[in-house]
Amino acid sequence: MTGKLWGIGVGPGDPELLTLKAVRLLGEVDVVASLAADGRDRIARTIVAPYLPPGQHELLFAAPMRADRATRETFYDEVAEKLATQLDAGLQVGFLCLGDPLFYGSFVNLLARLGGRYPCAVIPGITAMSAAAAAIGTPLAHGSESVAVLPGTLPDAELVRRLESAEVAVILKLGQHLPRIRRLLERQGLVGCTWIASELGSPRERVSRLADWRHEAAPYMSLLLLRRQAPGP
Amino acid sequence: MTGKLWGIGVGPGDPELLTLKAVRLLGEVDVVASLAADGRDRIARTIVAPYLPPGQHELLFAAPMRADRATRETFYDEVAEKLATQLDAGLQVGFLCLGDPLFYGSFVNLLARLGGRYPCAVIPGITAMSAAAAAIGTPLAHGSESVAVLPGTLPDAELVRRLESAEVAVILKLGQHLPRIRRLLERQGLVGCTWIASELGSPRERVSRLADWRHEAAPYMSLLLLRRQAPGP
Repeated sequence: MTGKLWGIGVGPGDPELLTLKAVRLLGEVDVVASLAADGRDRIARTIVAPYLPPGQHELLFAAPMRADRATRETFYDEVAEKLATQLDAGLQVGFLCLGDPLFYGSFVNLLARLGGRYPCAVIPGITAMSAAAAAIGTPLAHGSESVAVLPGTLPDAELVRRLESAEVAVILKLGQHLPRIRRLLERQGLVGCTWIASELGSPRERVSRLADWRHEAAPYMSLLLLRRQAPGP
Repeated sequence: MTGKLWGIGVGPGDPELLTLKAVRLLGEVDVVASLAADGRDRIARTIVAPYLPPGQHELLFAAPMRADRATRETFYDEVAEKLATQLDAGLQVGFLCLGDPLFYGSFVNLLARLGGRYPCAVIPGITAMSAAAAAIGTPLAHGSESVAVLPGTLPDAELVRRLESAEVAVILKLGQHLPRIRRLLERQGLVGCTWIASELGSPRERVSRLADWRHEAAPYMSLLLLRRQAPGP
């Protein structure tokens, strides 16, 4: 009998934002797998540290985050095969994901490779955009508003077009794209209604109006929340 | 000294999808307030039932869900004043919200009325859209995809326009709007790539392709997840 692969959402950063289900699974799986980006902390692993049983069997994979696509594909092929070995041995494998596994999570790469071969399940997690709205104290969505969720990797023209039709927009995958997107928002007259939330739930958490953000770039774990007007009654 | 108002996200339905923080707060606040819609179960209250201390002081408000706007505004004015009485007495008040309080949650109505007068904080919750993606087993977003989050209350033309530009769309506030939206998706040739998820985490949970959904309408707690293509690598 083969094992099962669990994508475990660990939320945006605060270990108290794990769900009861995620905590239970961390105590039940045979193997806990996680990614570390080149030179970066193992953020998801750090979040769950308080809940890992002593002596937990772990697998850590060093992900090539800024590599070309072929390199990344090869990396996920290799990770999938290493997890497959565990699954073939009948083990339950929990794969840690920041935020929610199916919301821009690296788990999607593994689900695409292993979903047809093994039983898989996902424990949803609190997204960074929910945590950002809470930290800013502003609604993400209210009444008949719509929300555009946009990766900062989109080209300028595409971002502008999609920003036009949404009362609220969330721009993720910010990091090095911030200077470009900030100029774009300035041209659109939208800086004044945009907030930036960064490294939420960590000791380095920062939340401010974009106009007051004095840094050129933003940490990897950052997002913009743009709201054209105060939520109507 | 006045008390503090907490918007407590209780997730989409499964009591195990509460966060550790929400469970802690439920044990710490002096008063737990929640809404019941006319003739409907107190869904949020039911979810948290396992975690409420015995003898917990509770406030229940019967919300007029389908009333006209003025009636709803008056209702929230009255709820806000009743909570203000508790807060003036120095009590900590936890207001229960399905899903995430700031993501189409009724808490936004109270934050608008009480946010300037009292300390307020939000415990984010798992959204129904994260839970739906997990239940369907399909990514909500991957790579450079964008997501349009749309209320089903939008007029047809507006829905069509916003569906055009998103690789993935989530349509919330479905209920009685399902027949109209289904016809619209049929005209756009999009029924085949749409799933419906209903009453997630409850014993009545249903997840199916929209093409296989044999009911005319959908329960109140339902959403559509539309994905134009399989997530790219």
